[in-house]
Amino acid sequence: MSLLVVGSVALDTIKTPFGERREILGGAASYFSVGASLFTKVRLVGVIGEDFPAEHVEFLRSRNIDLSGLTRIGGGKTFRWSGRYVGRMDSAETLETQLNVLGEHRPPIPENFLDSQFILLANDKPDNQLHVAERMKSRKFMMMDTMNLWIDHFRDGLKRVLAVVDGIVLNDEEARALGGDSNLIAAMRKISAMGPKTVLVKKGEHGSIIFSEGRYFALPAYPLESVRDPTGAGDTFAAGVMGYLASTGEVTFANLKLAMLYGTVLASYNVEDFGLDRLRTLTRADIDRRHAEFVEFLRHGSD
Amino acid sequence: MSLLVVGSVALDTIKTPFGERREILGGAASYFSVGASLFTKVRLVGVIGEDFPAEHVEFLRSRNIDLSGLTRIGGGKTFRWSGRYVGRMDSAETLETQLNVLGEHRPPIPENFLDSQFILLANDKPDNQLHVAERMKSRKFMMMDTMNLWIDHFRDGLKRVLAVVDGIVLNDEEARALGGDSNLIAAMRKISAMGPKTVLVKKGEHGSIIFSEGRYFALPAYPLESVRDPTGAGDTFAAGVMGYLASTGEVTFANLKLAMLYGTVLASYNVEDFGLDRLRTLTRADIDRRHAEFVEFLRHGSD
Repeated sequence: MSLLVVGSVALDTIKTPFGERREILGGAASYFSVGASLFTKVRLVGVIGEDFPAEHVEFLRSRNIDLSGLTRIGGGKTFRWSGRYVGRMDSAETLETQLNVLGEHRPPIPENFLDSQFILLANDKPDNQLHVAERMKSRKFMMMDTMNLWIDHFRDGLKRVLAVVDGIVLNDEEARALGGDSNLIAAMRKISAMGPKTVLVKKGEHGSIIFSEGRYFALPAYPLESVRDPTGAGDTFAAGVMGYLASTGEVTFANLKLAMLYGTVLASYNVEDFGLDRLRTLTRADIDRRHAEFVEFLRHGSD
Repeated sequence: MSLLVVGSVALDTIKTPFGERREILGGAASYFSVGASLFTKVRLVGVIGEDFPAEHVEFLRSRNIDLSGLTRIGGGKTFRWSGRYVGRMDSAETLETQLNVLGEHRPPIPENFLDSQFILLANDKPDNQLHVAERMKSRKFMMMDTMNLWIDHFRDGLKRVLAVVDGIVLNDEEARALGGDSNLIAAMRKISAMGPKTVLVKKGEHGSIIFSEGRYFALPAYPLESVRDPTGAGDTFAAGVMGYLASTGEVTFANLKLAMLYGTVLASYNVEDFGLDRLRTLTRADIDRRHAEFVEFLRHGSD
């Protein structure tokens, strides 16, 4: 079924203990659409500046991503993010953010995208997310991401989006802040009471946990002895989840669990190299192989 | 099979957001022996002062714990620890430590304990751990715990213990420090290369992970919406693991995984109330019920 992502397309500058990359393809919508393209056809809505390299557009197009919602602003500059990871690399330190066209333009949703059934509203100002959410009349499962800025300072707007989405994906610190409870399990239930039936929490090296219709399920991360760049881990996790859901068309608790395994596998590949480099060569066969290894890793024998 | 624990017996003063308790029964060997007593008969070696309340001795004895290795030092004062937890309660802030008899006396190992097959060397000075370890000629599986103090300042002594034990259980920060790698997965492999075939890492609310003979396995924590006091979580986790192993007598990777589920369940009960209060009334039926719930919680349907 159709899968739409609305979010940022960026040029990222990243430093990790393993190296540095300047102005590489980034942004939540890029990571998400490239990741999900391994599962299903993806529609992308985002905005770029005149300076956005044609090679990145070509790469996205080569993944069979529908770019009719990618709006280039003449004379505008593309959103830029610069960050670094140190030590455990469990969180990015933002060095610089240049919103550029992202701060000034809300990209139009193409008419032919309005029938999308699976939708990810990537991290954005809540008002922008709500504007999209309310137009998605054919939605079967609409999930939102968010960040601390909106949780801390735009809570009213955020609550209006929470009231209309089916799910939210966010990291554990954000979940504690949004739920207003230092206990993550309790915070997840409180977030769900704000609207979304499904609350999906990303915990980096500690895996992920979901609350959906009264039930919890958790997964450890795939064990990796080397992580070169965590950028996009959360977005590719969401991509695996939503890509799998859209490819199967079914949103049950059982299918959400299956989807989380694919999200975990996709994110584990993504962090093996800088930016989207690992996903450029990744195949569905790679995913299926590591999926099988992950299932073996999870086997506990207590059934 | 026989299960021996050598470690601290303490009087703890604990503050959490849910209340405060003064001079309650604590110490790694207390938590471990009470927890493991739900699985098998436990032998305890530890030292207490003249001030140690008789009611605590009676409680331990009531759990069928063999106290012939519990040495009371006339005129001595019992080890005391005071700590508090705030916010997420993911780590204790130590307010005061009075080593007292623990700093001056190495309790003798009763002759009839020398045939112990399963042994936990709870956190102690490496020299003390080595002294016990070398006398355990009948051991089938000997696991050690440790802490940052020994990792940072007594590394040579620690390495001598690591060279003789079969396993080590420690938390994730300790594992990164001991392994000398900020990547936990890599750190675990490096610790194993120092001696112990089995490296078991406790991650609190994030569960646990094991490395044993080249393979990894991880479990999330049991999801709890309320944690009143995390004290003893790690010791009761180890108690469930070692108690289950000793009760079955088998140390294979498959059985270590089964044991981790019991450790997780036991620790999840322990943190529901202050100190050992929850374990005072806990039954094997309670453990089996939550074990079944935990297995259900882990079910992902991808097999």
